[in-house]
Formats: sequence, structure tokens, C-alpha cells
Amino acid sequence: MPQLRQDLVTGQWVAIATERAKRPSSFSRGATVAVPPSAQCPFCLGHESMTPPEVMAYRQPGTAPNTPGWELRVVPNLFPAFGPANEQPVQSSVGPYRTMTGVGVHEVLIASPGHQQDISQLALGQVEQIVRAYVDRYNANRDNPAIKYLLIINNHGKEAGASLEHPHSQLFGIPVVPFNVQEELDGVARYRTETGRCVYCDILENETSTVERVIAENDHFLVYAPFASRTPFEASILPKWHASHFEEMSTDQRNSFAEALKGLTARFFAGLNDPPFNFFIHTAPNHTGADLDYHWHLELLPKLAIAAGFELGSGVMINVATPEAAAEFLRGVDSSALSTSETSPAVH
Amino acid sequence: MPQLRQDLVTGQWVAIATERAKRPSSFSRGATVAVPPSAQCPFCLGHESMTPPEVMAYRQPGTAPNTPGWELRVVPNLFPAFGPANEQPVQSSVGPYRTMTGVGVHEVLIASPGHQQDISQLALGQVEQIVRAYVDRYNANRDNPAIKYLLIINNHGKEAGASLEHPHSQLFGIPVVPFNVQEELDGVARYRTETGRCVYCDILENETSTVERVIAENDHFLVYAPFASRTPFEASILPKWHASHFEEMSTDQRNSFAEALKGLTARFFAGLNDPPFNFFIHTAPNHTGADLDYHWHLELLPKLAIAAGFELGSGVMINVATPEAAAEFLRGVDSSALSTSETSPAVH
Repeated sequence: MPQLRQDLVTGQWVAIATERAKRPSSFSRGATVAVPPSAQCPFCLGHESMTPPEVMAYRQPGTAPNTPGWELRVVPNLFPAFGPANEQPVQSSVGPYRTMTGVGVHEVLIASPGHQQDISQLALGQVEQIVRAYVDRYNANRDNPAIKYLLIINNHGKEAGASLEHPHSQLFGIPVVPFNVQEELDGVARYRTETGRCVYCDILENETSTVERVIAENDHFLVYAPFASRTPFEASILPKWHASHFEEMSTDQRNSFAEALKGLTARFFAGLNDPPFNFFIHTAPNHTGADLDYHWHLELLPKLAIAAGFELGSGVMINVATPEAAAEFLRGVDSSALSTSETSPAVH
Repeated sequence: MPQLRQDLVTGQWVAIATERAKRPSSFSRGATVAVPPSAQCPFCLGHESMTPPEVMAYRQPGTAPNTPGWELRVVPNLFPAFGPANEQPVQSSVGPYRTMTGVGVHEVLIASPGHQQDISQLALGQVEQIVRAYVDRYNANRDNPAIKYLLIINNHGKEAGASLEHPHSQLFGIPVVPFNVQEELDGVARYRTETGRCVYCDILENETSTVERVIAENDHFLVYAPFASRTPFEASILPKWHASHFEEMSTDQRNSFAEALKGLTARFFAGLNDPPFNFFIHTAPNHTGADLDYHWHLELLPKLAIAAGFELGSGVMINVATPEAAAEFLRGVDSSALSTSETSPAVH
């Protein structure tokens, strides 16, 4: 079972995922993990038996689970970083240190039967299905008392950590509230105490009025480059309404989110020649109600810089591009040629 | 002038280094920065005019500054992330956001005249000079009232962010105490309040007695894999005596540190085929006295894993190797063939 270990000084948790362990010598430089070609891709149509049995699929009526006929498929990760799902976490001590069993879930959301097309190129309708699956799998796991946080992420490109080329997202259900989310919750509370307002609502108002960091917007979302962007072309998608829990979107809002996400990734694809990136959704911790003061959002970080000794040692990122220049560049990208959908994916 | 920007939610600082700015289109995938061959290397012997004038050098008596005859040379970074050094930082507001001028220093410590040999392969005497230069440059900048923190780092290998192949370390003097150091200071204070003891001294005692995470030790330093290692083969070098300020080492302690550092990097070179890595020294903030409760140390993080969406979104690193297995592997590496020094670099 994976194990969480807490740093005795900083209090930060690390997951030691023994299920994913390799022999030490395999870390020798040059001993790279091979990405299988599409003929051996476990996520491709007809290869359903190469994955653990699906936990959910959007498929044509009358087709059986774990056979072709699906448009989107969700399976447990073959090498889960967290699990199993049906146990409570157990804490223990090792000398002065603290550990916790790494229970939880680790699911893979296969974006479409196609091996190549990611969110930037899929039809808008398929991206809407992806977002619907995010919400469905969030809700399928939210009542698990062992899971304190559900994190949805996407790794695009080998340099961004995607070990399989076939586009997919991942859902992690973990037994702790992660540090990066707690830090934002603390920031929201502090700003509320000081000003009486939501810090994200103030960012929304400021970015909308100053315009220079806006990348795009639609009915329900603002897409912008954060003022303190940590990497060149960092971008956030922020709901225009104050909402703590992403899974409580209306269908209209959900489809608007899909449009904003497709539009943003299409700008990256067309303007920067399909760079590697990671994105994740920061929503409220599991088992909290709508009264929690938070404002969910998506953060996208292109893998265009290396966190080197200074960044790792200080926590201060050095960004060589201003977010104003990045936003201006992305605003000007014409990604309309990427649209493969009948309905326009344009984010106006 | 570089600019520091503070994230409005988390309070974390980011450095926007405009001196290092590129055109947005240069971030397009495939547009890589070329590393010059040694014939054009600005750090090689005889190329002294390709760098800004040296601020310090250990050189043969009678040789002039910025000419051959040096064994170790320190120059300002040509594209500084922080500077200038002779101004106080100025804070201002941009809408709801806070900025600070990125004053400070950014120096490059060229390890030796040779283009290839890094710490693992240099003679122990040369590594002792490198550590002496760390202390000398620390002390040369410590009285600057604008500099709140002095961070010494080393990037080894292109994948770890070394943009020039010729081995070098870097000294950053910055106008804020970085988050990662403040987090440790807070952890030390919390542990002292709870137990009356130093958390690092307790780690030292525990690791020495349990042995399984020990990589090496010598008279003054323990080299070990931290219990909550964030990456495969993470290692720390910890003084065996409680000391907050690294620059206050005796000559004997300094040379013992050089021996431990050379021994550790030699184990990486020989055992893992020269993997890329970053290391940094965490010492007390500048302008603090020996009464500050802290315990300085060096942290080394091999670049053997990618921080992907889960790690970036949560702050929880997933480590696929246990530190116990990593330490056992590194303990068993025979790096004696790497010694090019007359005196033995063996860390017993």
C-alpha cells in the first residue's frame, strides 16, 4: 500500500508509492521509460482488456463494459499512487516521524478513443463530455469518508510527465488536504478578514478592468495570466461567479468551462507549437459545504522552464516572461483552424 | 531592474527577471537555447573577457585580474535575476497587488579552469577551495542591508537547469527571506516549543542510530536520505554540531564539508551514471546572530522525476523509490576510482 510520510520540519506530506517502485539502478541516466507506440496503447479502442475494468464509460447504448463503443472511459490507474479506496487511513510513528497509509483513489479518464487528439483539437462536444466526466467522477468519490481531497489533473506531453501519449486526465482522491490548497484557503480567509471581500472576486474585477492580463473570456469564465505568474504563459480559468465547489456547476456553466478550456489549450497548441503543460482544478476540500469561503479555479502551467537550484531552494520562481507579454501574445493567437467541432469553440 | 511580485492569495513571491526576457515566440516548442561548445565557453581559461569583470579569484601570485592564472573565479551573472546591489528595495502597489524591486546580487562561482570536471571529479583540494569561495562570497555580501537572504546553489546537468556546461555554482542575494527557509524556521520553532529540542539534532540522532538511511559520514557531517524524501535519491548533508550559520565553520569543518560533498556527488556520478541534480545550502537569514535557533544543511535533489500535475497542484510529491533503498544503494557505490586528488576523498 502507498505510504504518506510527513516531513518532520516543514510538516509537508510526501507519497512513497511502493506500487510504482523500480530498482535503484533503473534511475541511472539513460535508463528511460519507454512510451509504447499506439499499437500497444492500453487506452486505444479495442485494447480495453489492457486496463483494469472500467469504473465508468460514456458509451453507445447496447455496448458492453470493457468493449469498444465508448466515447470516454474511466479506469483505475494500473500503478495507483493512492489506494485502496475502502479503508480509513491509519497513522503511525516511525521514530520521531509520522506516516499515514496512502489510501484513496487514482483514476484515469481517457479523453476519447483517438490516440492523438487532446482537448485543444477534440470537438467541443467531446470536451464537454470530459468536463462532465470530471464532475461525475468527483461526485462518485465525494462520499468516501477516507478521502479528504479530490484533485483533477492533466499532464500534456512527455516533458510534463505524461507517461502515456494517449490523452487522458487523472483523478486523485487523497486522505489529506494538500498544502497548496490549504495555503489558498488560508489566503482567502486572511483577505476576507482584512477587506471583507473574496480575494478571487477582487482579482476577477481587477483583471477584467485592467484587461492587460486577460487571455479570453466567455459568459461564465475569465481566462487570464496571473499577476505573479510562476512560469512563462501560466494561465488561470476563474469562474465569474463566487463558488467554492466546482462540481456544483450547472450544465450551462459546465459547457462554458469546456469552451474556455478548449479555447485556452488551442491557443497554446497553435501559438506555441503544442508545448507540454500541466493543469489542475483547485476546488474546496471534500466534505465541506457551500458555506465554505473559497473560489474554485483551474491553473495551467506550461513546462517551459526548469525549476532549478534557486527555485527549489527558495520557493521563489524566476519567470523570464512578463504575464502581460504572455497574455498579449496568447490573445493574438488565431486558433480557429483547430476547430473540429460543428459548433464554434471560439472564446470571444 | 528585475521585479518581485507577490501572489495576492498565497503571499508567495515570484521574480520577474526582465533582464532575462525573451520574445514570446521563442518559447515555442523546438526553439531551444543552445549551450555553446567549450571553444566558446565564457568560463574557460583564456576567455576571461567574455564575462563581466571578476569580483574575486583565487589565482597565482603576480597574475592580473581577468587574465589566466586562476584556480577559481567569481563573476557577476551576465543576465542577473537580482540587482543592482547598491539600492534598497522599493515596494509598490499595482491595483490590489504588491511588488518590490528585485535588488540584490547574482554571482557565478566558476569551479575550476577545466570545462568538464565537476565536484565529483575534482581533486579534494579544489573542492575545498570551492567551499572556501562559498564562505568568502557569503561574507563579502552579508553586510549589505538590502539583502535579507543569501542562497548558494549548484545546478548540475542540462536537465537540472545548467545553461552552461562548465561547472559552476551561484550565489543569490535577495531582498526577502524565501518561503522555503521561513517554513523551516517555523518548523524549528514549533518543534522547540513542543519538545525543547532542535528538530535537526533529533533527526541526526535518529538517523545515526537507525542507520538505514545513512549514505556516509565523516568527522563533522552526516550524509543521509531524508525520511520524507521528495524525489528518488534525495540527500542531505547535516552538520553534527548545532549551528545556525554555515559561514561560521572552522577550516577543519569546512574541509570536512568539502569531503562530504565530493563524496556524495562521486557516489551519484559512479552509481547513477552522472545524473542531473540541484543542490542548495539552507543557512540562517542574513543579519541574524548565532542565537537564532536553526541548524544549517545542504539539500541535494537529483532531477530523476518530473513534478507533474498532481505534484504542482497539491504540493505533495510522489516518490517511487524509498529513501531506505536509495541509501542502501548509494552506500554500496564504490566511487574511489573517481579520486583525482593526492589526499583520499573517501567519506568513511
